[in-house]
Amino acid sequence: MRVTLKEVAEKAGVSRSAVSRTFTEGASVSPKTRAKVMKAAEALGYQPNALASSLTTGRTKLIGLISNNFKNPFFLEVFDLFTRGLQEAGLRPLLVNLTDETDPEQSLRMLRQYSVDAVIVASSTLPTSFATAFRVAGVPVLHCFARASDNPDVHVVGINNVAAGRLAAREMKARGYSKVGFLGGPDSATSTQDRLQGFAQEAQAQGMQVTATHARSYSFAAGRAAMLSLLQHTPAEAYFCGDDVISIGALSALRDSGLRVPEDIGLLGVNDMEMAGWNGIDLTTIRQPVKQIVEAAIAQLGLLLDDPERPPEARLFSCEVVERATLRPPVQ
Amino acid sequence: MRVTLKEVAEKAGVSRSAVSRTFTEGASVSPKTRAKVMKAAEALGYQPNALASSLTTGRTKLIGLISNNFKNPFFLEVFDLFTRGLQEAGLRPLLVNLTDETDPEQSLRMLRQYSVDAVIVASSTLPTSFATAFRVAGVPVLHCFARASDNPDVHVVGINNVAAGRLAAREMKARGYSKVGFLGGPDSATSTQDRLQGFAQEAQAQGMQVTATHARSYSFAAGRAAMLSLLQHTPAEAYFCGDDVISIGALSALRDSGLRVPEDIGLLGVNDMEMAGWNGIDLTTIRQPVKQIVEAAIAQLGLLLDDPERPPEARLFSCEVVERATLRPPVQ
Repeated sequence: MRVTLKEVAEKAGVSRSAVSRTFTEGASVSPKTRAKVMKAAEALGYQPNALASSLTTGRTKLIGLISNNFKNPFFLEVFDLFTRGLQEAGLRPLLVNLTDETDPEQSLRMLRQYSVDAVIVASSTLPTSFATAFRVAGVPVLHCFARASDNPDVHVVGINNVAAGRLAAREMKARGYSKVGFLGGPDSATSTQDRLQGFAQEAQAQGMQVTATHARSYSFAAGRAAMLSLLQHTPAEAYFCGDDVISIGALSALRDSGLRVPEDIGLLGVNDMEMAGWNGIDLTTIRQPVKQIVEAAIAQLGLLLDDPERPPEARLFSCEVVERATLRPPVQ
Repeated sequence: MRVTLKEVAEKAGVSRSAVSRTFTEGASVSPKTRAKVMKAAEALGYQPNALASSLTTGRTKLIGLISNNFKNPFFLEVFDLFTRGLQEAGLRPLLVNLTDETDPEQSLRMLRQYSVDAVIVASSTLPTSFATAFRVAGVPVLHCFARASDNPDVHVVGINNVAAGRLAAREMKARGYSKVGFLGGPDSATSTQDRLQGFAQEAQAQGMQVTATHARSYSFAAGRAAMLSLLQHTPAEAYFCGDDVISIGALSALRDSGLRVPEDIGLLGVNDMEMAGWNGIDLTTIRQPVKQIVEAAIAQLGLLLDDPERPPEARLFSCEVVERATLRPPVQ
């Protein structure tokens, strides 16, 4: 049986209000009364009800964690980092799976019913307007892996994907490729749009020929299907892929077609998720510093909870190339 | 600004209690009053507060989803299936990450503060006593991927790992192996204990020599390290590995050591997670029907919510071998 506030008050010989104030952050209560209450609460095994107390404090410490890509192993690391980081900050993630769903209305309604203190959108494939809808509705929101902006509508933590695209093109040039391809994720994803923009601009500026195609999703199956389709015609010498899981799908298609990587066709990914380093994959990739990104997102969320009116800020991390075995070496 | 219950009552021309009853499951309210309230609520954009109403109904519809292995890609599929299934059932998962934590007390305290309606423990590495602690504390609990039992302490959904171990040994025998090894997960995991028991018993019954060793965790790195260590001495002809991610780690170690799979050493996994089918991995494995397991777990959870006193039941699914390229073919 659950111990009630009334029982604690009786045992401590204080009012119910005194017990309630003892367990309400920032409420006034004398040290002597607090000590009596804590002693009685401990003896009885009393646990304050976070939800009941939220009606007083207005804080539930629940954070909506919204994602829509459960087919991309990169997100297992993202969930690991977010759940641990939020727990350490005394917050609790309510996980929302938006696979096949891009209308913010339903999530908004649901998350308001639970009075979440804030929402983290962890996705590069949901449109920018998705996170903005939360802000407009008065729900503090942070968009992780969002489009970089100098003037963001909501708090953003991630990388500048245009810059990542440029970095990819410079790498291709340094390795002597002259006909390069972009094999992106879905063309509705801001990450794909931005990586393509940076890649195509820089590739052209460097005098390389560039083509572009898109996989249906950030997944192994979609990357594999897109590469099989590219092989029906004359492929490029090397592909900058939407991310690691698309790269690994493309690698599978190339090998099944009897082509060698990087001798026949080169591949470059983005993220550096664990599988990129697996033996037999050894993907050369652009590392997105996910640990630092998630840490910054949680720190930023703390600031946002303290001051929901805080002006939106973009925190953008730089990326670096991780050299493995799917691009030929730089020309000396 | 949030629309209040009072505003809805005023607009509908009914009492506040009538509005509250309209949004409380099972509460009595006349069809006429309900219609007035719904019309006013819709016009104002009113959302009932699930947490406030939980104080009346005693139901939050929050479900604690506890896991401790965020390094195993198998669990991304598990989270995908659980979050979608719970959402479809109108329930909300509060995700709890217990990496490096096996004491139930802290989770119990936290989940009670949030008045979760029930808890799903999704882990084969947490001890049986972990889930039992919730039941003892009066929190409805279901243990997914738990140890099979004819007389379970809590509701259990998963497979019989002893039977899976026996199946693995029969497969090894059918392929003509005579010296086989078990390369399990951590020896504290019930899944590993049971798979070893079934495998060793059946292997001996079939006249094969059997050795056993353990990886430190269900992860690529641990599987790789364990196999590198086995290769210091005379290895077995084939290994039944703790799961797919351990198998893939072991495969990496074998290839880096210049050994061919299955010509020099065979490998057999468990789970059939997506990566097992990736080109370049092509792992022969014992498929655990995860979709059916999660569906059954959610159905069982529904029964448990309706009747928390329901006697514990074990729902156990059978497994099958998925033939790929890491074991030699059966002897004709």
